[in-house]
Amino acid sequence: MKTLPVILVGFGPVGRAFAELLAEKMAELKEKYGLSLRLEAILRRSSALLLEEKVESLDKRALVNKINDPSSWSRRPSLDSLLQQGIPGVLVEVTTSDLKTGQPGYDHIKKALTSGWHVVTANKGPLLVSFSELHNLAKENNLRLKFSGATAAALPALDVGLVSLAGTEIRRVEGILNGTSNYLLTRMAEGASYSEALKEAQEKGIAEKNPAYDVEGWDTAVKLALLSAAFFGVCLQLEEMEVVGINQLTPEELRMAKQKGLKFKLIGSLWKQKESIKAKVRPELLNPSHALFFVDGTNKGISFVTDSMGTITLMGGQSDPRGAAAALLKDIINIYHHF
Amino acid sequence: MKTLPVILVGFGPVGRAFAELLAEKMAELKEKYGLSLRLEAILRRSSALLLEEKVESLDKRALVNKINDPSSWSRRPSLDSLLQQGIPGVLVEVTTSDLKTGQPGYDHIKKALTSGWHVVTANKGPLLVSFSELHNLAKENNLRLKFSGATAAALPALDVGLVSLAGTEIRRVEGILNGTSNYLLTRMAEGASYSEALKEAQEKGIAEKNPAYDVEGWDTAVKLALLSAAFFGVCLQLEEMEVVGINQLTPEELRMAKQKGLKFKLIGSLWKQKESIKAKVRPELLNPSHALFFVDGTNKGISFVTDSMGTITLMGGQSDPRGAAAALLKDIINIYHHF
Repeated sequence: MKTLPVILVGFGPVGRAFAELLAEKMAELKEKYGLSLRLEAILRRSSALLLEEKVESLDKRALVNKINDPSSWSRRPSLDSLLQQGIPGVLVEVTTSDLKTGQPGYDHIKKALTSGWHVVTANKGPLLVSFSELHNLAKENNLRLKFSGATAAALPALDVGLVSLAGTEIRRVEGILNGTSNYLLTRMAEGASYSEALKEAQEKGIAEKNPAYDVEGWDTAVKLALLSAAFFGVCLQLEEMEVVGINQLTPEELRMAKQKGLKFKLIGSLWKQKESIKAKVRPELLNPSHALFFVDGTNKGISFVTDSMGTITLMGGQSDPRGAAAALLKDIINIYHHF
Repeated sequence: MKTLPVILVGFGPVGRAFAELLAEKMAELKEKYGLSLRLEAILRRSSALLLEEKVESLDKRALVNKINDPSSWSRRPSLDSLLQQGIPGVLVEVTTSDLKTGQPGYDHIKKALTSGWHVVTANKGPLLVSFSELHNLAKENNLRLKFSGATAAALPALDVGLVSLAGTEIRRVEGILNGTSNYLLTRMAEGASYSEALKEAQEKGIAEKNPAYDVEGWDTAVKLALLSAAFFGVCLQLEEMEVVGINQLTPEELRMAKQKGLKFKLIGSLWKQKESIKAKVRPELLNPSHALFFVDGTNKGISFVTDSMGTITLMGGQSDPRGAAAALLKDIINIYHHF
């Protein structure tokens, strides 16, 4: 069994969860998939943890101890030097997303793909800014660029759209793709005002201090752009979409909806219109016969309307760093293991 | 682009739908997946349609005309002779399922796998009777034996469990896997008696004349056995399961459930208990917080409880021959195309 190196770039909550999950799953991956992975390095902005131990000794506790010991971290070597030494493996890119420049993820991904490394990422920025370039670069080099972690993480929207619906024509995709705004809508439908619900969500760590990206619909729009790229080969620009968030809904509108047995949900839609792909994000009034009506709280869901398999709906998936880490690991397994 | 031969064995509603779907999708498969498939032969019990035309000329209408013209059908050659000529491709096995002997599907699948052909099947019998043998035979010969069509057809239970949940520990699977009994339960909850609901379902073509296999839970049990084989490598025998159908539910029980805001659903469950895999099928009383509560009518659904991705639920999928045919085609694409 060949041991494949993994380099982790970015060490926020998802990066940390990934490192821990990988250590936890090492033995299982060997047994179940014949896959021996070795976490070789963790890169933060200006420091790095280089793991030189034998794979066997890297259990989760040993790794956590190392991570927590400041003396384990040294000055960060260049990514190039790490990519060039030894056999190529997988770069896991989870640095902070910059939707305008795509940096620094763009550079990391490009370097990996030109050095023979596969890439698995949860970083939306580089994909949104340079999807076609990076996708083609991977293709030309016979490598994979996988990004389940950047679309709906543990909710396997990408796999289902690509693998499970292979051969169908996807006519329409509708999703509740942002857990934060869905949580707010759920609480508001229960009677909370927008500001009450937001405060509560912020206290629970569900909403960011600056919630604009989530509640104004941009997170959903970015996910739609990536899904469109994956399913239709068309990477939509945010400017091409109608994007309306939930922050303009009034308590009155929510009360009325509830009285009628309806619910507002922030729906991201993607559909074919003649030869082009259209997308929009906006609060929509759903009735109970809609497949996404019952997706409440921080849950996410996605429905695919197809020509030959009917409508298929997916919901759930853990919305936390561990869920995102599991999506990254799943993508790695699927690079090497063909079911 | 190499053209790969497809042989279709079995020509009931699913076989016919598959032949038509393949003809319909031929150009799209080339364009999207670089996959050129050629339907070489359709075998019925004692006759065969051998298609010798160039691929380009086999559009859907031409194929349907051929199928409907009795003079196109000739005496059935041996499957062996067809498997031996030219390069190997995919055998699509959709003969009638015999859950006791697995025949004739077992022979067909074994012949294909020993002749270098991949197999895609919707036939539960041979898998239930000889899963390990056939699975290992495929593995030894570096071939694929895929059976989405035998588990929940267009509902991608197998793909999600294998591909999307790769690397997770599946702790529990719960499914509404039989559309017929779910339809009956839905109608009974609306006030119909069991016999009224059954008569109606039979008139609509939803229930078989002899509904025992569906309503007594055996169809669900067989699907659980196949899912267990795929996910846990353990092919359970039906005798090892507690199987209770919906035919013993009284109108009184259903009325009571409805009054309390609950629903009876025929749930197939699969779970790990220490080192062994357990399965049972029985009507369970669900409350609205259960992910499968809202799966009504002929719809199917399945929930996976995992260690690292939370709970993921899938629902929908066209329950008809075209949906099953699309699942067969999807499996073929996934043999040759690695996403």
